[in-house]
Amino acid sequence: MRYKEFTIEGRNAVLEAYRSGKPMDKLFVLDGCKDGPVQTIVREARKHDTVIQYVAKERLDQLSETGKHQGVIAFAAAYEYAQVEDMLEAARQKGEPPFLFLLDGIEDPHNLGAIIRTANLAGAHGVIIPKHRAAGLTATVARTSAGALNYTPVAKVTNLTNTMEDLKKQGLWFVCADMGGETMYRLDLKGPIGLVIGNEGSGVSRLVRESCDMIASIPMYGDIDSLNASVAAGVLAYEIVRQRMS
Amino acid sequence: MRYKEFTIEGRNAVLEAYRSGKPMDKLFVLDGCKDGPVQTIVREARKHDTVIQYVAKERLDQLSETGKHQGVIAFAAAYEYAQVEDMLEAARQKGEPPFLFLLDGIEDPHNLGAIIRTANLAGAHGVIIPKHRAAGLTATVARTSAGALNYTPVAKVTNLTNTMEDLKKQGLWFVCADMGGETMYRLDLKGPIGLVIGNEGSGVSRLVRESCDMIASIPMYGDIDSLNASVAAGVLAYEIVRQRMS
Repeated sequence: MRYKEFTIEGRNAVLEAYRSGKPMDKLFVLDGCKDGPVQTIVREARKHDTVIQYVAKERLDQLSETGKHQGVIAFAAAYEYAQVEDMLEAARQKGEPPFLFLLDGIEDPHNLGAIIRTANLAGAHGVIIPKHRAAGLTATVARTSAGALNYTPVAKVTNLTNTMEDLKKQGLWFVCADMGGETMYRLDLKGPIGLVIGNEGSGVSRLVRESCDMIASIPMYGDIDSLNASVAAGVLAYEIVRQRMS
Repeated sequence: MRYKEFTIEGRNAVLEAYRSGKPMDKLFVLDGCKDGPVQTIVREARKHDTVIQYVAKERLDQLSETGKHQGVIAFAAAYEYAQVEDMLEAARQKGEPPFLFLLDGIEDPHNLGAIIRTANLAGAHGVIIPKHRAAGLTATVARTSAGALNYTPVAKVTNLTNTMEDLKKQGLWFVCADMGGETMYRLDLKGPIGLVIGNEGSGVSRLVRESCDMIASIPMYGDIDSLNASVAAGVLAYEIVRQRMS
């Protein structure tokens, strides 16, 4: 398993974990417990958007592994990131043209989880995310990925455009979904490919867009602007699947 | 606008709204306010999975429309449901074969919102949801639909299979996504069609599945079982779009 959820128990340990920047997904607090240290922890939890749940002592005791929770238990996530090279190697071993997802700033962990799930089922060899301004691999992502995080490698890179340039040297073509592109059904998406998905609000960033070889547009017949990011990723990924099957 | 978000202010009004079963999406509570009535409201809010946010007095005053919030403001949703007949009429007026989404028990409001968004952009004429055991139209759904709820009509029916039988008499064919079906690319999805999406966990229910004319399977190359429900809806909807365009 690449991914493991674990608990952090006790006031100092939980507070320390927050201060170290560890991604925390859920905080259980003893109901009615309102002293200073607990309030400090709750404040940190709100600041970091952790889901806070107030529970009875019995429930905390049950969740506790050490028996020394002092009224607080946090759920954190640990995940082993992969290297991009490993993904290309996996494609080589399967005798398939590489198929990678590149996420240009997906911020919502539910979208990230759903996209990793889609990447797994569409047969992609990995998902590349940027280090900054993007959701990381938290317990929410693991849960929303429905287990895909254990199979589909995720790599974190400092600079997405640099990574794209490196991958181009290895024969990959890049396609992103954006307005004003060619209808996706008319593009040739069969070879070694990187599918680029933009941010939920602002789409693909300018530099990344300029590094793409193709801009694909998903036909839109409605009144609003765009599909949900994970739905758009799914629709495009399956157009790639369809072309590869035919 | 079919959809409007509104606030309910004051202790009695908020509590009353909870007790009447009104879907409430968010509750703002004055930080530090812990007297009996407020605790009762917070308890109701937890029971109904409302997101609770503790805020300062200035923020509450700013949110308040009446100036008499008494420390609590709730966000509720009001929505006008459509009739199935109106959707068929809309298709007739546009000179298009009807294209409807039928959701067999989607429970997650984020999925419901994302699916309504997809229905809008794929050019569907409406979305049909069952009265029971399914998410209704809350503020979360409205927000996740990215405005689509204002354009794409949603009808609520007592019995999905009865509605399907009625629609078959009007020439509709039904396709659902499920294991063991024919690969979606090989089905003819061009005519008047109802796309059936099953529940997140248990899929399409037996009776509804039996009422479907076609079972479509989305190719799966991965290690896990299924796509996220809203992604699956998007992938199938766009296969319908592709076939209609060609």
